[in-house]
Amino acid sequence: MFNTVAIVGVGLIGGSFSLALKDQKLVKKVLGVSRSGATAQKALKLGIIDEVLSLEEAVKQSDLIYVAIPVDVTLPVMKTILDMIRPDQIVVDAGSTKQALCAYVADHPNRSRFVASHPMWGTEYSGPEAAVHNAFRGRSCVICERKKSDPEALAVVERIYSILGMSLVNMEAESHDIHAAYVSHISHITSFALANTVLEKEREEDAIFELAGGGFESTVRLAKSSPAMWGPIFMQNRENVLDVLNEHIMQLRKFKSCLEKENYVYLQELMENANKIRRILE
Amino acid sequence: MFNTVAIVGVGLIGGSFSLALKDQKLVKKVLGVSRSGATAQKALKLGIIDEVLSLEEAVKQSDLIYVAIPVDVTLPVMKTILDMIRPDQIVVDAGSTKQALCAYVADHPNRSRFVASHPMWGTEYSGPEAAVHNAFRGRSCVICERKKSDPEALAVVERIYSILGMSLVNMEAESHDIHAAYVSHISHITSFALANTVLEKEREEDAIFELAGGGFESTVRLAKSSPAMWGPIFMQNRENVLDVLNEHIMQLRKFKSCLEKENYVYLQELMENANKIRRILE
Repeated sequence: MFNTVAIVGVGLIGGSFSLALKDQKLVKKVLGVSRSGATAQKALKLGIIDEVLSLEEAVKQSDLIYVAIPVDVTLPVMKTILDMIRPDQIVVDAGSTKQALCAYVADHPNRSRFVASHPMWGTEYSGPEAAVHNAFRGRSCVICERKKSDPEALAVVERIYSILGMSLVNMEAESHDIHAAYVSHISHITSFALANTVLEKEREEDAIFELAGGGFESTVRLAKSSPAMWGPIFMQNRENVLDVLNEHIMQLRKFKSCLEKENYVYLQELMENANKIRRILE
Repeated sequence: MFNTVAIVGVGLIGGSFSLALKDQKLVKKVLGVSRSGATAQKALKLGIIDEVLSLEEAVKQSDLIYVAIPVDVTLPVMKTILDMIRPDQIVVDAGSTKQALCAYVADHPNRSRFVASHPMWGTEYSGPEAAVHNAFRGRSCVICERKKSDPEALAVVERIYSILGMSLVNMEAESHDIHAAYVSHISHITSFALANTVLEKEREEDAIFELAGGGFESTVRLAKSSPAMWGPIFMQNRENVLDVLNEHIMQLRKFKSCLEKENYVYLQELMENANKIRRILE
């Protein structure tokens, strides 16, 4: 479908997107852009990209430019890209926040060549080594502000995500950021905080290592996630994240109060209510 | 190895233990005991047990009695069992708390025929349908107060857990309960509370369903766990759980404060510290 695609940020998401395009034979050549020479070389060695170029050179040569870098750096980089693209090129981002970016580019003369997307997939790992085949299959991909993108550019991007096995969800940027705070950002904060709790309280690390069953590992695994990626997400979405975080601390205090007062009946109610998550997850 | 084993509580743990014994050909006949007739019949139908009997009858006929019921009910049931066993029988429990039970039976004349164990395995599901083959393989099993059990009874129990693929860890009951609060109980509380947070804040359940990626599912899956099982665990271990819960709320408040004050540097430090959990989990 494409001759050349530029991947700006050849890590977990950008790398997996490149592998997916290659696996589906949707691209002839993938150009990689990275601030770090070592990262770029790693991606090249792993076969994720075919050539390393500067941002300017890569953008010039590409039909599609896919931006998958921390959401704070995305703002100026997106401006640089939009400033230089031709009317036949398409730019897509994969960021976990959408409101700040959409606002930032709202008045750019080339706004319509940009499609704001958030493929809802990730792992706790980062860098080119974290990229995997078949990453996005079966997951949702949110597209924001569809009406601000050219119908033709939008159709191409939606077609690609569909071929990669994603189901498309339309949302305004504001709604996206609210929902993302609930279903993704808060999980990462609780996991980081749980790791810090255990590291603070449990001085015998051997005991954690020996005893940690599947439960612990699944609730704490997101604490391995990249601070460079997640810091900017929390900051850009801070009002929504704070809102959910306050609610979460309140919910934890209810458990605390039940234990302090030995209120067994209310404790059961709290857990039975939590069980309702089954109807959503199953 | 055994002619007959009684499983008291034919759910997730008891059921999986029975399947493991049968798979390893360690038992000729398994007797099931359950307060609920429906549960007992389900276990029978699933081939987890061979016969349903009353507690008294099952204990009478068995070489080994395996108790896997909620930790509050375990106390009186364990007394009933110890009151009636012969000197050649062995009783084992699989509870997630050990201090209350060990204290409760400390002075029982038949204490030495009891081995206090906690196989560190579980899922968020419960009942006989939740029992799986090969459940315990590769996990740790804590044995508490080894010196209070007859060496011969202890050797039999440790040999069985070893054959099932578990690595044995010795701990005093007090230490067990402290560590279990860190590596298991707190994960369940945060998961229950996270489910309640999302259910409270996110009124558009379709959005959760559509957007929830792997991260959300892994941090919230324990919220499906059985309140009947976990309530008594939290209550029996309430001092340790409260201690860890207070620390956890404090750690969450640090994240909250970083976001409120837009203190990006400290936020990065908190996440980098949490990343240290990698060296324990990997």
